[in-house]
Amino acid sequence: MQHDIAWPGSVRPGGRTARVREAVLQVTGDLLAERGLAGLDLTEVAATAGVGKTTVYRRWRTPAGLVADLLIDMAEQSLPRTDTGALLDDLTANARLVAKTLTDPRQGNLFRAVIAAATVDADTANALHAFYDTRLDEWAPCVHDAVARGEAPAGTDARAVLSAVSAPLYYRLLASGDPIDREAADRAARAATVATMAGTFVDAAYADQRS
Amino acid sequence: MQHDIAWPGSVRPGGRTARVREAVLQVTGDLLAERGLAGLDLTEVAATAGVGKTTVYRRWRTPAGLVADLLIDMAEQSLPRTDTGALLDDLTANARLVAKTLTDPRQGNLFRAVIAAATVDADTANALHAFYDTRLDEWAPCVHDAVARGEAPAGTDARAVLSAVSAPLYYRLLASGDPIDREAADRAARAATVATMAGTFVDAAYADQRS
Repeated sequence: MQHDIAWPGSVRPGGRTARVREAVLQVTGDLLAERGLAGLDLTEVAATAGVGKTTVYRRWRTPAGLVADLLIDMAEQSLPRTDTGALLDDLTANARLVAKTLTDPRQGNLFRAVIAAATVDADTANALHAFYDTRLDEWAPCVHDAVARGEAPAGTDARAVLSAVSAPLYYRLLASGDPIDREAADRAARAATVATMAGTFVDAAYADQRS
Repeated sequence: MQHDIAWPGSVRPGGRTARVREAVLQVTGDLLAERGLAGLDLTEVAATAGVGKTTVYRRWRTPAGLVADLLIDMAEQSLPRTDTGALLDDLTANARLVAKTLTDPRQGNLFRAVIAAATVDADTANALHAFYDTRLDEWAPCVHDAVARGEAPAGTDARAVLSAVSAPLYYRLLASGDPIDREAADRAARAATVATMAGTFVDAAYADQRS
């Protein structure tokens, strides 16, 4: 675990407040990945992060408050979209990134824990939805560019396309237990691309307007 | 809640043991849907079901044991596949059934609770995977029949097709929070059908063998 928050030349901007947040969210992610939401204790987070307990309670208030802020931080830090110039290749890059994240021991456990927490806590659910909003928006230009190139029909719903890429991988993680491997990722991207090109994801409102 | 387990003409076969199981699993489902796994207490289940506490502890042992048996019961009771004679219509029926289940207040909460429990308990995860195995097997003939009719290419992986139908609906339930409506269900079925017809779900081993 990295708690050397005062390391010179850190890529994180900001002063003491930013360093405190980084240390606290690092420990929050570690504990969530190891033990789930039930194992997240503010006093322990403060002690492990080397931050005053009062600061942690005042700023984050509850375990759900920590998880919500962690999701904001994950959204801020997430990698930008890939731009290969072809829809299938962009979506394949997206699918492989999702597969890599979900199969990474720490990240995979973290996502499982946050998704489980969201099933019982409305604030965590809202933070989780906002995280996916950010991710889906970040990659939407892949679809808009495909429309501009004539690869996909006008009116294609970018959010639906990108959800279709991720969905089979999350289904494996949370429901069927099937392996999340390169083949699964590439197949998810191919299926979404084929359906996109066939016009399956053209927004119903757009289609109605044109007919 | 239905606890009138001795009702004459019940569709459930079996004697006292079967009636005890039915009452216990009914209460288990109610409590899970209301409060999640953390709210599942064997003593309370026994009292509410009108069954001896010792019986419940001896037979199911833990809350996870109850959840595993509930999943077995849900798999046994699930509706058979639809057979319309066309792949798109079969998959649309499947998608609408999944959407109906996930948006039903009791069933939706139950699935959320069981999926959350599976993220922290290996026995529950195994029981959940077995449940999806049963469901996916039950509907596999829709794909096999489509292959026999020439609607889908030989070597199409039925499990992958049916997972592709469910996945976008589970992604909405657990990740994005987007609504699980008729449009989402029909679109999931159309996308899976288009990708199936294009050969996206042909098993890699089968494709290699033929090339």
